[in-house]
Amino acid sequence: MSLVTVGTVAFDSIETPSGKADRVVGGAASYIALAASHFVREQELISVIGEDFPKEFLSTLDSRGVGSEGLVTIKGGKSFFWEGSYHEDLIGRDTVTTELNVLEGWTPTVPLSARHSKFVMLGNLDPSVQLSVIEQLESPPSMIVLDTMNFWMDIAMDSLKKVIAKVDVLMINDDEARQLTGLKTLPLAAEAVHKMGPKTVVIKKGEHGAIMFEKDQVFFSPAMPLKKVVDPTGAGDTFAGGFIGYLARLGDTSWEAKKQAVVVGSVLASFTCEAFGTERLESLKESEWHARMRKLRAMVKFRSIRG
Amino acid sequence: MSLVTVGTVAFDSIETPSGKADRVVGGAASYIALAASHFVREQELISVIGEDFPKEFLSTLDSRGVGSEGLVTIKGGKSFFWEGSYHEDLIGRDTVTTELNVLEGWTPTVPLSARHSKFVMLGNLDPSVQLSVIEQLESPPSMIVLDTMNFWMDIAMDSLKKVIAKVDVLMINDDEARQLTGLKTLPLAAEAVHKMGPKTVVIKKGEHGAIMFEKDQVFFSPAMPLKKVVDPTGAGDTFAGGFIGYLARLGDTSWEAKKQAVVVGSVLASFTCEAFGTERLESLKESEWHARMRKLRAMVKFRSIRG
Repeated sequence: MSLVTVGTVAFDSIETPSGKADRVVGGAASYIALAASHFVREQELISVIGEDFPKEFLSTLDSRGVGSEGLVTIKGGKSFFWEGSYHEDLIGRDTVTTELNVLEGWTPTVPLSARHSKFVMLGNLDPSVQLSVIEQLESPPSMIVLDTMNFWMDIAMDSLKKVIAKVDVLMINDDEARQLTGLKTLPLAAEAVHKMGPKTVVIKKGEHGAIMFEKDQVFFSPAMPLKKVVDPTGAGDTFAGGFIGYLARLGDTSWEAKKQAVVVGSVLASFTCEAFGTERLESLKESEWHARMRKLRAMVKFRSIRG
Repeated sequence: MSLVTVGTVAFDSIETPSGKADRVVGGAASYIALAASHFVREQELISVIGEDFPKEFLSTLDSRGVGSEGLVTIKGGKSFFWEGSYHEDLIGRDTVTTELNVLEGWTPTVPLSARHSKFVMLGNLDPSVQLSVIEQLESPPSMIVLDTMNFWMDIAMDSLKKVIAKVDVLMINDDEARQLTGLKTLPLAAEAVHKMGPKTVVIKKGEHGAIMFEKDQVFFSPAMPLKKVVDPTGAGDTFAGGFIGYLARLGDTSWEAKKQAVVVGSVLASFTCEAFGTERLESLKESEWHARMRKLRAMVKFRSIRG
C-alpha cells in the first residue's frame, strides 16, 4: 500500500450565501481520499462511521481504489455530524452543531496491509488518534503529513506537539501558524515549526494561496481565482489529499516534487469550492484539472526583468 | 518627460507594534517618485507643500532626477499631515489626525514640460484633482495609472468614476474592488471595472501579493515574505511607483512588460515595509532589489507536472 489516510468521514449540513446542503457526505478523510484517488489507484482509509452512512458512498470509495478495511462501521451507531453556517465573506463560519457520535472514544486500528505504507496522511482529528496511527506503523514511511486546526491547539496543545514532533510535513493555515508559534510573520513561524520537528511547513491561506517553507527555500502557489465560490468546506482537506496523492503516485519526496504537489493541491481545492460536499471532486475529470494546472502556471510566469 | 506623477507630499506620524516615527516624510507622491527614480532619471512631480517642509527632501528628489517645477510651496503654509496607528496585525489602522492644510482648495498645474508625458501616475488623492491633471495633458499618453482608496468611494464616488473612465490601469485593494463594483469575487469585480473603462486592473492584496486582470488574462505576484514588518505605510504607493517607473523606463505597455512591472512593484514595496517612512527606499541599492527579484522568481517556479 502506498498511501494510508486517517480522518473523519461524516455528514455535514452547510449554509453559505449560495444556499444550503443538508447532511451531505463530508469529513476530512472523505475529501482527502477522493482527491488522492485522482493519482493513486490503491489506498487505505482509516475512520469510523455509523450504520446510518449511505452505502453508495462506500461503493464510490471502492470503485476508486480506496480500501475500507480500516473503515469501521459501528452497529446501531450514528456517524459524526457537523452543521455550520458561513459568513458573507465565505471565510468566517459559525458551528451550529457538532455531534461526535461514533467518533467518541474511538481508537483506530491500522489494517495489516497498511502498516508499511510509504505515505501517511493524518487528516484533521484528535491528535491522540493521529499519534496512535503513527505508533502502529511497522516500517518508517517516506513521508508523514499532518493536518490540524486551531481547535486542537486550544484544547490539546501538548498532545498535538507530540504528533508534530513525529511528522515530515505540517499543514496549517496562517492564523494557526501564528497561534502555534506565537510569532507574527510566516517566515518566523515556519522557522519555529522546523524546530518542533517537521522539515517542511505548508501554510494554507485559502483564497490567498499556499506557501511552503523548507530550510532556506520558499515556494508559493496562488489559489485559482474563482468567479463563484459555492462552499469552501473541505478545500483544505482536498488540498492535502491532492498534495500527498500526487507525491505517493511519483514516490518522490524531493523539493521539486513537493512544489508541484502544492500546485496540484491548490488546483484540486478550487474544484471543491465550486459545489457543496464532495460532488465536484467526484465528477472531476483529468482533462479539467490538467487545464487548470496550465492556467495556474501561466498566471505566475514572467520573463526575467530587463535593464 | 517620460513620467509625471500627481499625489500628496506630506508629514506622517506613525505608530506600529515596532515603534513610533514622528513627522517623517510621507505622502503617495513621495513614495511613487522615489520608487520610480530607481528606473527613470527624469520625472516630474505635481504636488503642494508648506514652508515647513525640509529642504533636504527636496534636494533628495532633485538628486534623483525628480523635477520640482510642479511642486508648489505655499508661503507660510503648513504641509499635509497624517497621523495613524496600526493594529497588532499591521493590516487594520486608525487615523488619529488628518490635517489637509495646504492641500485644501489646491488645484494642480501641470508644468508645460510635463504636458506631453507618456506615462502618467495619478497617486491617491481627491479624484477632482486627478481629473484636472488629465485635462491639462496636451497629447494622449501611452498609459495613465490611477491609484485610489475606499475614502473617495465613500465621499466622491461620482467624481471618482469620471476619472476611472479615463485611465488605462486601475490600482485598488481587494476590499475596494468589492466596494467599487458590489461584486464578491475578484474575477467578477475585474470584469465590472473593465466595463467602467480601464483595460487593466491591478488588485493589491498587501502581504498576500497582487493580482492583475486584462481581458481573459490573469497574472499573480506574491508579496515577498518578510521576517519583520516595521511599517507598511507607503507600500501601495511604492508598488505603484515601481510599476509605472519600470514601464516608463522600457517605454513598453505590453502584457509581458506589465507582468514584470507587477513583480518589480511587489519587490520594491517589500523594502518600504522594512523601515518607517521613505528611508529604506532611499538607501535601496540596485543589487538589493535585483537579488529579491531573483528570490521571488524562484518562489513561484515549478516544473510541469508528471503523469
